[in-house]
Amino acid sequence: MQDKVLIFGHKNPDTDSICSSIVYEMLDKRDGRENTKAVRLGKVNKETQYVLDYLKIEAPELIEKVEEGQEVILVDHNEFVESVDGIEKAKVIEVVDHHRIKNFETSEPLYYTARPYGCTATILFEEYKQKGYAIDKKEAILIASCIISDTLLLKSPTTTEHDKKALEELEKIAQIDINKYGIEMLKAGTDLNDYSAEELINLDAKESDKDGQKFIIAQVNTVSIEDVLKREKEIKEQINKAIEEKNLSLFVFAITDILNSNSEIIALGKKAEIIKNAFGKELKNDRAYLEGVVSRKKQIKPKIVDNL
Amino acid sequence: MQDKVLIFGHKNPDTDSICSSIVYEMLDKRDGRENTKAVRLGKVNKETQYVLDYLKIEAPELIEKVEEGQEVILVDHNEFVESVDGIEKAKVIEVVDHHRIKNFETSEPLYYTARPYGCTATILFEEYKQKGYAIDKKEAILIASCIISDTLLLKSPTTTEHDKKALEELEKIAQIDINKYGIEMLKAGTDLNDYSAEELINLDAKESDKDGQKFIIAQVNTVSIEDVLKREKEIKEQINKAIEEKNLSLFVFAITDILNSNSEIIALGKKAEIIKNAFGKELKNDRAYLEGVVSRKKQIKPKIVDNL
Repeated sequence: MQDKVLIFGHKNPDTDSICSSIVYEMLDKRDGRENTKAVRLGKVNKETQYVLDYLKIEAPELIEKVEEGQEVILVDHNEFVESVDGIEKAKVIEVVDHHRIKNFETSEPLYYTARPYGCTATILFEEYKQKGYAIDKKEAILIASCIISDTLLLKSPTTTEHDKKALEELEKIAQIDINKYGIEMLKAGTDLNDYSAEELINLDAKESDKDGQKFIIAQVNTVSIEDVLKREKEIKEQINKAIEEKNLSLFVFAITDILNSNSEIIALGKKAEIIKNAFGKELKNDRAYLEGVVSRKKQIKPKIVDNL
Repeated sequence: MQDKVLIFGHKNPDTDSICSSIVYEMLDKRDGRENTKAVRLGKVNKETQYVLDYLKIEAPELIEKVEEGQEVILVDHNEFVESVDGIEKAKVIEVVDHHRIKNFETSEPLYYTARPYGCTATILFEEYKQKGYAIDKKEAILIASCIISDTLLLKSPTTTEHDKKALEELEKIAQIDINKYGIEMLKAGTDLNDYSAEELINLDAKESDKDGQKFIIAQVNTVSIEDVLKREKEIKEQINKAIEEKNLSLFVFAITDILNSNSEIIALGKKAEIIKNAFGKELKNDRAYLEGVVSRKKQIKPKIVDNL
């Protein structure tokens, strides 16, 4: 067992999961709490790598499971299915998250701070403010990167006034052109050429279930949907493989055009027919084009849950 | 449907459930939020009535169920089994609580603030401080009453430094002898003579389940355990009736001596034999004396859950 309390985001970590873990540890240090440590549950994606390179920060250590009784702090998730292997027997002492609560339980009271904001880091930003800590440039860019990533530069419908206000203030602290930085960062994340089709569908995949029906919604960001669709055949093969291996009822792969804020989805599985009711679009060739849809959490997942 | 957002604590409300609901509404008013309203899910107990009489405050309106889609704020609980009828179809938009999280889920992100403190009102106290609102005398006595009730005047092992610090500051604001007030308040709650045996076992009863085994832990505070045990026969009859009607595996009735900090428990049901492993005490005549045990949450429930 690790002697430190481990802080981590969800599997298939995105920028909010990695950078909020790092910021959480920084915030703890400000509090004089030295026994916590940011770790990660998966490969650093290219967008997040851009942030780490920009700030010359090492990625947190990769862990694959936790031992029984390990004390942990969850950021950016709460569902055990998205968390580390062994989570059921770990001791969750804190959670900071911006998702709905599901399949989460503890045997003891704990610190749980959920806010319906665009990203986890905005909640941490407000904690800095409440505690009266001055945010330094590195912290500002880490928090800003989470906001930019999760809200697609404040364009996603998940964006709240809290995120906007935070990003505005963080831009002043960071003393950089946040729009320019944000586009570069998002673009870095859309460089999908090095990934195999298998990696592509797992890059940001979230597994859930409804009444025992398991489903995955995966998402990739791009500046050209067409470019990603060049590999449609391989992608579909990998999705079908995942459906079989994990016994899924549905796999939705969303290819999101971050510049124009639309998504093309590929939906496979025995429940793929629900897409019609969910989004009012008939699947053609297992695909549908969803105008104005960019948010898995707000625009895709709830409709799938309602129709499954 | 009520047009206001309803704020309420658990069924069989105690002082923290009733008074934290009232304080929450007051805090909302400070924020300029006018559309929330404290209500309650059950009879006001004598301890809480003492507080309301002392402050000349009316009890919140009693509600028995909520309609589908009703917006609600839960204080002092999160488990649906302890909440209002219809909660599964209501929309929980906020939770402030100091219990573990269990069987709780939402379809949307929400505000959830849990802290492992002695009572819910201490969390609200800290919110006043964070927001820079001066607490008035009425608010101070309401919050102090919750702390006194849940921590038995800071003597329960559930007491934290947060509760102690809050009560110290609240005493200054309230300008009363908080110890004297607290003993009077607690004593008012121990006047059990007007209650029937059936009412007694339901006064502060919490139902839970483990792996499908339902159990209830009920608790009454007293200044004389002996006095309560005069009605042992009737109490056992009522417990057995509840076990049969609700199909319980176990019913534990804790009679807590608040002056000396001990409890006598009566345990009935087909799983009553677990008491021996849980507390290292053999049941005699379905009873066991537990020295130093006053907290259901910290000293009784976890041991039962572990052994059931």
